[in-house]
Amino acid sequence: MLRTAVIGCGYWGPNLIRNFMACRQTTVTWVCDQDAARLEAALRPFPSVRKTTSLDELLAAEDIDAVAIATPVATHYPLAKAALEKGKHVLLEKPLAASIAQGSELVELAAKKDLRLMCDHTFCYTGAVRKIKQIIDAGELGEILYFDSIRINLGLFQNDVNVIWDLATHDLAIVDFLFPEKPIQVSAHGLAHAGNSIENIAYVTLTYPSNFIAHFHVNWLSPVKIRKTLIGGSKKMIEWNDLVPAEKIKVYDKGIELNPMEQDEKSRLMVSYRSGDIHSPQIDSTEALLLVAKEFADCITENRPPLTDGHSALRVLRVLEAAERSIKSGGANVRIEYP
Amino acid sequence: MLRTAVIGCGYWGPNLIRNFMACRQTTVTWVCDQDAARLEAALRPFPSVRKTTSLDELLAAEDIDAVAIATPVATHYPLAKAALEKGKHVLLEKPLAASIAQGSELVELAAKKDLRLMCDHTFCYTGAVRKIKQIIDAGELGEILYFDSIRINLGLFQNDVNVIWDLATHDLAIVDFLFPEKPIQVSAHGLAHAGNSIENIAYVTLTYPSNFIAHFHVNWLSPVKIRKTLIGGSKKMIEWNDLVPAEKIKVYDKGIELNPMEQDEKSRLMVSYRSGDIHSPQIDSTEALLLVAKEFADCITENRPPLTDGHSALRVLRVLEAAERSIKSGGANVRIEYP
Amino acid sequence: MLRTAVIGCGYWGPNLIRNFMACRQTTVTWVCDQDAARLEAALRPFPSVRKTTSLDELLAAEDIDAVAIATPVATHYPLAKAALEKGKHVLLEKPLAASIAQGSELVELAAKKDLRLMCDHTFCYTGAVRKIKQIIDAGELGEILYFDSIRINLGLFQNDVNVIWDLATHDLAIVDFLFPEKPIQVSAHGLAHAGNSIENIAYVTLTYPSNFIAHFHVNWLSPVKIRKTLIGGSKKMIEWNDLVPAEKIKVYDKGIELNPMEQDEKSRLMVSYRSGDIHSPQIDSTEALLLVAKEFADCITENRPPLTDGHSALRVLRVLEAAERSIKSGGANVRIEYP
Amino acid sequence: MLRTAVIGCGYWGPNLIRNFMACRQTTVTWVCDQDAARLEAALRPFPSVRKTTSLDELLAAEDIDAVAIATPVATHYPLAKAALEKGKHVLLEKPLAASIAQGSELVELAAKKDLRLMCDHTFCYTGAVRKIKQIIDAGELGEILYFDSIRINLGLFQNDVNVIWDLATHDLAIVDFLFPEKPIQVSAHGLAHAGNSIENIAYVTLTYPSNFIAHFHVNWLSPVKIRKTLIGGSKKMIEWNDLVPAEKIKVYDKGIELNPMEQDEKSRLMVSYRSGDIHSPQIDSTEALLLVAKEFADCITENRPPLTDGHSALRVLRVLEAAERSIKSGGANVRIEYP
Repeated sequence: MLRTAVIGCGYWGPNLIRNFMACRQTTVTWVCDQDAARLEAALRPFPSVRKTTSLDELLAAEDIDAVAIATPVATHYPLAKAALEKGKHVLLEKPLAASIAQGSELVELAAKKDLRLMCDHTFCYTGAVRKIKQIIDAGELGEILYFDSIRINLGLFQNDVNVIWDLATHDLAIVDFLFPEKPIQVSAHGLAHAGNSIENIAYVTLTYPSNFIAHFHVNWLSPVKIRKTLIGGSKKMIEWNDLVPAEKIKVYDKGIELNPMEQDEKSRLMVSYRSGDIHSPQIDSTEALLLVAKEFADCITENRPPLTDGHSALRVLRVLEAAERSIKSGGANVRIEYP
Repeated sequence: MLRTAVIGCGYWGPNLIRNFMACRQTTVTWVCDQDAARLEAALRPFPSVRKTTSLDELLAAEDIDAVAIATPVATHYPLAKAALEKGKHVLLEKPLAASIAQGSELVELAAKKDLRLMCDHTFCYTGAVRKIKQIIDAGELGEILYFDSIRINLGLFQNDVNVIWDLATHDLAIVDFLFPEKPIQVSAHGLAHAGNSIENIAYVTLTYPSNFIAHFHVNWLSPVKIRKTLIGGSKKMIEWNDLVPAEKIKVYDKGIELNPMEQDEKSRLMVSYRSGDIHSPQIDSTEALLLVAKEFADCITENRPPLTDGHSALRVLRVLEAAERSIKSGGANVRIEYP
Repeated sequence: MLRTAVIGCGYWGPNLIRNFMACRQTTVTWVCDQDAARLEAALRPFPSVRKTTSLDELLAAEDIDAVAIATPVATHYPLAKAALEKGKHVLLEKPLAASIAQGSELVELAAKKDLRLMCDHTFCYTGAVRKIKQIIDAGELGEILYFDSIRINLGLFQNDVNVIWDLATHDLAIVDFLFPEKPIQVSAHGLAHAGNSIENIAYVTLTYPSNFIAHFHVNWLSPVKIRKTLIGGSKKMIEWNDLVPAEKIKVYDKGIELNPMEQDEKSRLMVSYRSGDIHSPQIDSTEALLLVAKEFADCITENRPPLTDGHSALRVLRVLEAAERSIKSGGANVRIEYP
Repeated sequence: MLRTAVIGCGYWGPNLIRNFMACRQTTVTWVCDQDAARLEAALRPFPSVRKTTSLDELLAAEDIDAVAIATPVATHYPLAKAALEKGKHVLLEKPLAASIAQGSELVELAAKKDLRLMCDHTFCYTGAVRKIKQIIDAGELGEILYFDSIRINLGLFQNDVNVIWDLATHDLAIVDFLFPEKPIQVSAHGLAHAGNSIENIAYVTLTYPSNFIAHFHVNWLSPVKIRKTLIGGSKKMIEWNDLVPAEKIKVYDKGIELNPMEQDEKSRLMVSYRSGDIHSPQIDSTEALLLVAKEFADCITENRPPLTDGHSALRVLRVLEAAERSIKSGGANVRIEYP
């Protein structure tokens, strides 16, 4: 039973607590937050868990094997570093850290201490993404031609990071998880409003060595949530709508038609809504965060890297930093540097 | 009663014929196509209409006031020029011509001859776009922040023009129609496949003088049709899904929230699907092409420019040419030149 | 080429004219309506068709092989009888006639004269219903357990027949077409409003010899159109939503689970939205009425009964009359009499 | 702080535990289930709660003010009776009891002991139903003409009660909550399969003194969940789709059109998908069960009947018993007896 301490009781922390309590392999022994009232509220259902507003008290506790950190990104590095130095395994909210430099240092420190460093790229643990990976790995889509994602949020402005750091991180983690090929350059267009310089809408285009393109539309300027991804292949296409519980994934069993077609066939297509059949596979609906908790416990027990380890999280940071430079330069293509 | 000749019986021609026959102000007297079988099939329901495979015969006919041209874009210029020179008013399928130079010449020729030159930017005549214009003009959205369109087609590869010329033309016509402000630069990313250099997927970003951004995703690589547009304002947002007949337009009555919010409010939003109410106005379902026919007849009768005149069609061409240069250069921002 | 006369230019007549003009095997030579203005408007696109307000003139015309009747149901019998007596084949809008007696007489008269009598049960010619029939006939659903249909219209009150005669006729034609088994009794509940005795909402339950049940909800009291049918079998279920063009038919690949299940499995299901995969087959989108025109011409040429012949239409009338008696008696089960 | 004991850890019990732990006014002190493993699993996240497999031990405990019972319906009566006799307030899962006689006795016993008896008609506490009540009470719909509900479940066969007792209970609780008028007779048609006599599909029609009709389609024979309700009024109509999180409620702002209309208007409507505008109000997304917990605590503190008290639950039982008699008699109208 992995004894976990959760740091941060904002939006995500309570979800971590609930799932680490529900998972058979984990429990929560301590929770820390600077705001006592928030701490109180988060732990109302869990009177057995100890609470503290002092990080030092938490890190000094004996009954903690691992720390899960759900705080603003600027604090990831110091908190994770302190925990690793105390010999605790660490699970970090995405993105891993505020810079490549910070992220690299955490990855190295964990390696040196032989501790697990995992990033909570939650989407990689959803039934939908796991099913998509399975379809892609089976070669069903044929050659993958594009990945197109729309991720629009409910007018929630952050004041520490821009919309790319906040939302595109999910998409970057997903493409890193799905495709072995890694992007070589990025172009990002976007806008800030309201007198600050934090972009709230952005379009991000990733260029790959092969003839594959990835594009994300991320946006805080919306009163409606949209989570829609298209993955087009030469044989089939996947449409993933994360907000339609009963039919998250549809596989269109026709790919593209590269040969010129007859006028009649063309006219018929022009008035159609689609060609080919659709297959919508059943998706495992286990809460992703429960699987995150389980993977964190398992990778520690089995002494192996977690599915979403520091290296994958670091690749995401590399794209984020390049995208930041691109958006500030008005959309120029910026090369992504790998060591 | 405007006596019209239709040139071209491919996909769109028969729709023109049907609507010009149904409209009270117009009729079709002649139809011309090089393919006699296609001509025969297109006119089966309309035995009263004369048919010819000879353009000369058509242009020589006495009982023609105007010509509607629905042929491949490369032929627009010579056909329209010949018709104008014979003193016929001209309706052209979009895009107006294959280049700014050709388009300009047609606009000038029509002006010199005092004939009407209209471009069939059909979407501007749909109930949906007319309703959107009404909402925007009434100021309901507040300051307009972004226009985002997805226009995905059923694996229909053209072999004369790329996907931007084919599909983004619709979006360019729509933004030209909706917003007085005109774009100043364009960036386009995209890919060609199948051994030719004709892009079949593209992302187009328009920059405007103000803090407004327009973005189009156009794509032939899909077995499913998508037609979805978001128009975000500081007060409200419009979602236009052209393929949901009963609810094409939804107006979300909450705009963006630029001020930082309390943690509680933020947490509440994070688990919500939307904020604010939705209003879905009733849309006039008159076939857009019937209104195109009527506008063409009316602008001739009233001796005034049509709603979608040569000048607007020319502005669309200016963006298309700039987008073409951008996509060939890998996405660089290209300035749009206005005279 | 079948030379057809169309009688009635109300809502449906113009659709008949358009499709009989477009079909390769048929043409329209005459159209008759008592309202000259309506006649004028309906034939504006078809100046080649002769028009008359006189039934006698129409029936006297030489260039007519068959008559298609799209008039109020009370006039079906006299019009069809007159046409059959003049030796014309007859296509009648649904329902065939205003009573079993009238319908039987028409069927007998057509047989005696060796003429084709066809009822325009349009839905049986749609791509959706043809696909459903194919799935059922292949045994994919297993034992069929229920047929459930919702057919809700846009507040369109008829003043001649009630909502069962108007809307449930479609469903009765469909179940007659899909299933060899015929219903033995019917129960109908419903209500009239607005001071007349014409029911505008009704629930109709059909009992069959086997353990199969059919139920229709028909309704004029709605500002939104709904057309949704469920067909449940022991192995699979079909969901047919006629208003979602891209996905009219979904086949759920799980049937019912008749065995008691474990608590865990049960809990998992309780929070799920569905079990099993969905398959949505591509549907032929040819306009059903074009196939009606073709079938009418073909059955005459081939001297065989049409797919939706007088006998099937008469079976529908038998249920309608029984349903009428049931609804007037407050929902009692009424036996359906077959000869 | 209301100290609550939960009896039953099947599907619903854990939800009660979680919400009674999260609610500020309540806590869970004890949980009882005959199955020790299930008890163990249910309390994993809540190590502070005491557990027992002995009802006697639970009822003997000092630190219990109230009991929440989530067990099979046959056990409701003895468990609730025992709790009331020990002086505990009682919350019962729906339906209240297995018969009117049992339910009446519980209501009387609670009254005699001056204890609160509440039935967990959860839907009455959802944001959707509360919003619907608000709209109806404000008179927005005009005269209410019909209530039509579809409630289809995932092939989950119960072996103690039929589908009406299981699912229609929700709808009966909702109509009892929404409308002051009470039904006077009920007709139910349905079928059992698989060799037992427990109906798994049923159609229930309620007759009211006024010209109002309610109809429920309840069904276990489905691999897909459907939860859809229409409430039609003379002025407006509500469509409630409980499975579309972002748009659960749509209000169509056109009622029915009782006057005959012109042919043109009629033709226009026939090809439309809807008339009038749609308004989709924002719905409070607080989990209903949290509000159930709060109401239970509040009604005890304020010494007043709960919103969903024993009397309303008893009215639901009266309809259930009458519906049972109707379905067994093949659908006859059965009068509902009120004392």
